[in-house]
Amino acid sequence: MKSLGKKTAPNSTEAKVRVAVVGATGYAGVELVRILARHPRVKLAVLTSQQFVGKRVSEVYPSLAGRCDLVLQEARVEKIASQIGLAFTALPHGASMDVVARLVEDGKRVIDLSADFRLHEPETYRQWYRPHQAPRLLREAVYGLTEIHRDRIPKARLVATPGCYPTGAVLGLAPLFAAKMVQDTVVIDAKSGVTGAGRSSAVELSFSEVNENFKAYQVGVHRHTPEIEQELGELAQRSITVLFTPHLVPMSRGILSTMYVDIRKSMGEGKLTKLYQDFYRQAPFIRILAPGCFPETKETRGSNDCAIGFRYDSRAGRLVVITAIDNLVKGAAGQAVQNMNLMYGFPEVEGLRGLALVP
Amino acid sequence: MKSLGKKTAPNSTEAKVRVAVVGATGYAGVELVRILARHPRVKLAVLTSQQFVGKRVSEVYPSLAGRCDLVLQEARVEKIASQIGLAFTALPHGASMDVVARLVEDGKRVIDLSADFRLHEPETYRQWYRPHQAPRLLREAVYGLTEIHRDRIPKARLVATPGCYPTGAVLGLAPLFAAKMVQDTVVIDAKSGVTGAGRSSAVELSFSEVNENFKAYQVGVHRHTPEIEQELGELAQRSITVLFTPHLVPMSRGILSTMYVDIRKSMGEGKLTKLYQDFYRQAPFIRILAPGCFPETKETRGSNDCAIGFRYDSRAGRLVVITAIDNLVKGAAGQAVQNMNLMYGFPEVEGLRGLALVP
Amino acid sequence: MKSLGKKTAPNSTEAKVRVAVVGATGYAGVELVRILARHPRVKLAVLTSQQFVGKRVSEVYPSLAGRCDLVLQEARVEKIASQIGLAFTALPHGASMDVVARLVEDGKRVIDLSADFRLHEPETYRQWYRPHQAPRLLREAVYGLTEIHRDRIPKARLVATPGCYPTGAVLGLAPLFAAKMVQDTVVIDAKSGVTGAGRSSAVELSFSEVNENFKAYQVGVHRHTPEIEQELGELAQRSITVLFTPHLVPMSRGILSTMYVDIRKSMGEGKLTKLYQDFYRQAPFIRILAPGCFPETKETRGSNDCAIGFRYDSRAGRLVVITAIDNLVKGAAGQAVQNMNLMYGFPEVEGLRGLALVP
Amino acid sequence: MKSLGKKTAPNSTEAKVRVAVVGATGYAGVELVRILARHPRVKLAVLTSQQFVGKRVSEVYPSLAGRCDLVLQEARVEKIASQIGLAFTALPHGASMDVVARLVEDGKRVIDLSADFRLHEPETYRQWYRPHQAPRLLREAVYGLTEIHRDRIPKARLVATPGCYPTGAVLGLAPLFAAKMVQDTVVIDAKSGVTGAGRSSAVELSFSEVNENFKAYQVGVHRHTPEIEQELGELAQRSITVLFTPHLVPMSRGILSTMYVDIRKSMGEGKLTKLYQDFYRQAPFIRILAPGCFPETKETRGSNDCAIGFRYDSRAGRLVVITAIDNLVKGAAGQAVQNMNLMYGFPEVEGLRGLALVP
Repeated sequence: MKSLGKKTAPNSTEAKVRVAVVGATGYAGVELVRILARHPRVKLAVLTSQQFVGKRVSEVYPSLAGRCDLVLQEARVEKIASQIGLAFTALPHGASMDVVARLVEDGKRVIDLSADFRLHEPETYRQWYRPHQAPRLLREAVYGLTEIHRDRIPKARLVATPGCYPTGAVLGLAPLFAAKMVQDTVVIDAKSGVTGAGRSSAVELSFSEVNENFKAYQVGVHRHTPEIEQELGELAQRSITVLFTPHLVPMSRGILSTMYVDIRKSMGEGKLTKLYQDFYRQAPFIRILAPGCFPETKETRGSNDCAIGFRYDSRAGRLVVITAIDNLVKGAAGQAVQNMNLMYGFPEVEGLRGLALVP
Repeated sequence: MKSLGKKTAPNSTEAKVRVAVVGATGYAGVELVRILARHPRVKLAVLTSQQFVGKRVSEVYPSLAGRCDLVLQEARVEKIASQIGLAFTALPHGASMDVVARLVEDGKRVIDLSADFRLHEPETYRQWYRPHQAPRLLREAVYGLTEIHRDRIPKARLVATPGCYPTGAVLGLAPLFAAKMVQDTVVIDAKSGVTGAGRSSAVELSFSEVNENFKAYQVGVHRHTPEIEQELGELAQRSITVLFTPHLVPMSRGILSTMYVDIRKSMGEGKLTKLYQDFYRQAPFIRILAPGCFPETKETRGSNDCAIGFRYDSRAGRLVVITAIDNLVKGAAGQAVQNMNLMYGFPEVEGLRGLALVP
Repeated sequence: MKSLGKKTAPNSTEAKVRVAVVGATGYAGVELVRILARHPRVKLAVLTSQQFVGKRVSEVYPSLAGRCDLVLQEARVEKIASQIGLAFTALPHGASMDVVARLVEDGKRVIDLSADFRLHEPETYRQWYRPHQAPRLLREAVYGLTEIHRDRIPKARLVATPGCYPTGAVLGLAPLFAAKMVQDTVVIDAKSGVTGAGRSSAVELSFSEVNENFKAYQVGVHRHTPEIEQELGELAQRSITVLFTPHLVPMSRGILSTMYVDIRKSMGEGKLTKLYQDFYRQAPFIRILAPGCFPETKETRGSNDCAIGFRYDSRAGRLVVITAIDNLVKGAAGQAVQNMNLMYGFPEVEGLRGLALVP
Repeated sequence: MKSLGKKTAPNSTEAKVRVAVVGATGYAGVELVRILARHPRVKLAVLTSQQFVGKRVSEVYPSLAGRCDLVLQEARVEKIASQIGLAFTALPHGASMDVVARLVEDGKRVIDLSADFRLHEPETYRQWYRPHQAPRLLREAVYGLTEIHRDRIPKARLVATPGCYPTGAVLGLAPLFAAKMVQDTVVIDAKSGVTGAGRSSAVELSFSEVNENFKAYQVGVHRHTPEIEQELGELAQRSITVLFTPHLVPMSRGILSTMYVDIRKSMGEGKLTKLYQDFYRQAPFIRILAPGCFPETKETRGSNDCAIGFRYDSRAGRLVVITAIDNLVKGAAGQAVQNMNLMYGFPEVEGLRGLALVP
């Protein structure tokens, strides 16, 4: 971990950004509220909810009582737009598209946490989701994997925060693909906590079904696949196919991604470490472990960190790379705030200095 | 644990009881199927389901594949009745009433696992649930807490299997109330695993909400309260009020009931042990622990046991009694099968000899 | 929740307190490090460990990497004392006594998290633990339940942070005892997450034993009992006996205390609410819920809050009070830091503004 | 699931096998006791324990009370041998070697659950463990993966029950390797519940460390690797290297193995299904799922089943195979009993008909 910079006190004369969280009572939404309620450069101005309009957010989430007691509103774009400079949209995919387009038209900056603006190609979006209704905006949106696109984020009107799985996978593989060291298909065997599915009433996500159980799901057909391929393809400057298998872990937060890579030539682990360190020189939230050391999800729980470990298995001639993140922080709300910090010229770690909750 | 009797081999010439499980895909229902599929004196003839009509039960619960592959039917009483001798009904309360009444009218014996026939007084049922539509049958039904009503169960047409909480509470308190040793209000602080709420899509029972969380619910107003008071009142031959607080434990199965009793006179723990042992002399599933030893829920998981521990706290002048059961077995399906065994003259432990799954 | 005050920026010219955490790799210790590493008025100067001397704390707990990388030292009093103004001691009881006494003699202020200085009477300590070796200091120590002893803490040389169970229990009962409304024995049925037992290699705390299990332990003989009785007795100005039953919940953090109180006269719930609100007028971390609403442990996880709910059960004529805390924060490290803030004249909430990690 | 055969009643005149469980209080040991206590052809004659000599096994595991109350003895070979026909040895590897050798010398049949007799080559054993002290017996021992070696098990003096990971991995891959369809290195990404580590006091297996956490461990260096390679190599009749990564899941029981296979030529999923079905024609515990369906660990919990699912990913050109087992049953004690059944000519499923505990 590099220096997180000094905690600079907010100058009381500095203006705060007025912010809306559209979809504030889902899990990504309330995680945004948790982070933003203590961000020194943010004024939470509007929270919306579909289910709980008229209630205080602290009635739905009592942990917020006394820290954020805003009344939840309907998601009416014109009303929101008049009160804010920036909107975080945390709606289900499909539902986000229209709201985001109208907010951007209205001159607002938007950080979208849905899947609606992550894929650059409307045709790819159509294949994995449905026809896209704002293809021009789709092409304009910047993919908000901060460590990869930090040059383009500061001036973006619309940032599409990556999916939780792509965040863990791409951060672990990016240095290898950028160095064009990878041949053949990469296997990404990912394991996620249950909050990755959002605040859900699906029976198969009920405690009695998930507890004391472990399973794979959507093997080879999960919608995060094209995001991963898009990003790795850009880095490698060629078309990439990955084999992606998500699994459901009986825990609330965290994603561990175990990746199997056929690298073009044997490279000493020391050189690999240097490759990773150089690639992430600027990145305050990336933690590169010593070769042969691997991260656990809990060491990132509640923090915006991504920890990366690897080992070259000489018996099998493959590189194993493992990353750990908190799916709701680095995999969603935290990364969204990290992007906001870049968009407004705040220190990259502002509001994100909290340490992981261990044990 | 007293002798569980010898495992008597089913004589192949002995007739089997043809059985229906009405509501076979809820948690109590599938637990019945798990037990009955291996019961040597039972032929599973009909399984019904509201949600999965037309599917095999083993498609919904793959663990049954090869052991029970019946196709799930609609719950049409006339069609069921023609194929069976006994029906287990495991429907939501309210929904059970009508089905049960028609099956009994049709001459079938019924073991109901809902709340619909547990309270003897229609007026009490009305207060806690709604108006009762079969009050005569309500008065006739035998409360199926086997250890307490074993004399009346063999000839019953309709047995109402107790709620999971009342099973744990009443079994722990019955010897004291029968001996008229209790004065003042008993406090019953009960803790249940999540399957007690059934197969549910309620958001508040989703993994992300329940995991790493502990809470009380329905404090002082839970509908199992009048059942407990009815049974303890019968034993003590006076009107009884209890203070009952249920809690939700982040685990799937098990109920631990911690009970605080003001006993009329100090009694040595040796005498208390004898009181309990005498009361449960005939009871193969009751395990009385040595004074000062207390049970854990896991030692009953998957079995039909109820383990009972107690300690007289001389500092506070109260008796603490703790019981552990598996809410789906002794608290539901197992006790229902235990009642069936008595109704048909089978050995009481038939089909229920499986040991708890530990660890 | 009352106002948490404004986040005052640390004036860079303001001196920071130099602090030691003695026993930094146990769970209370590392939680202190987690909080203090971001406290704007604290300089972490010394961390000690018995097991990991010579390693960086961030090697033992990787989540600290880049935020706190101090090398762990042996707990040598003279060496520690020369570098600090204040020591937090988080050693096993018995082991703390000597270290604390020598640090105090050396003129240092100490906040002890062990049980060694919580009971005022050496004789009571002897009964529940062993003979005390520093009885004079024992009598001098201030019991660090901040909300109850906030007048005496600012000038204390030695503050004894309460046990996790007493914190949850006494905060829920204090207004009633102070108002002399309680008659008869109070029942405290408490349920704790597993970190309450510390970082332990006991087989009975291994995952395979605890998971999918629930049990009571040390029924009526737990060593936190005399602490609770001491504090309630002081408030009521009479001798108090409680019946205390701890239970182990398969979760990591959190204590829920369910308490059954026989109050002297029926009092409307509105008046009770006012009683609690008045008692905790000054207390930024106490959250009083509306009558009939009860807290869940998760709403306090990772925060220093204590949430209190109650309901008068008119059927049983008892008051039910339920409190929720995080055992490692308000029940240990957080409360210790809250006391430090009072001792040094910092805002009471400094370093403790983090919101609970939900979901 | 093929027919499990009819439940044949034990003829009371049929002799029972007298059996010892050496190491009965570890997790594999007590699981053996759980199964054998109800096996109609077995008489549990001797249980040994290192830690609990002189106690009844039901004092250590109260769930056994009334079903098995044998007093635990020291593991003295001569004393054991005089009382039994067959010994199950469930000791730590290294400790098993000598006891097993002496029991076999004494003319007893032995089913060993340690790693000591699984690898045929003393040199391989030495590389991964230590020098072997009974190399001749090592070469004689039959590897007890029942479905693969069912021809050799009936006459074996010594059967070495496979490790839990090799069981799940090899059963999923065997039909492919036997058909010589596999090219290149197979990736085995396995996830295990915590009981796989045995009854342990290691801090890293304590609840507070494991809960809400997910991690890989012993990446590429786990000792089960050579077992897997030995068995797949025999099937393919060539030397095989696998890349094996075990992970720790916060649950008690179950292993899910996700395997990535480069198959020599594209083969329709229908043909693959037929390949698997033919290979496992005789196997009552193997459940082949329809293509694209994958198993969950819970559907095998407490049962001796192995469920196998697969899907050919045409995008990536790889076959994904996933298996689920209960690590303590099919991965240890259950498979050991299955082997005993073959050794004594009992029905293969005898004592193993219990259904999985769901939910």
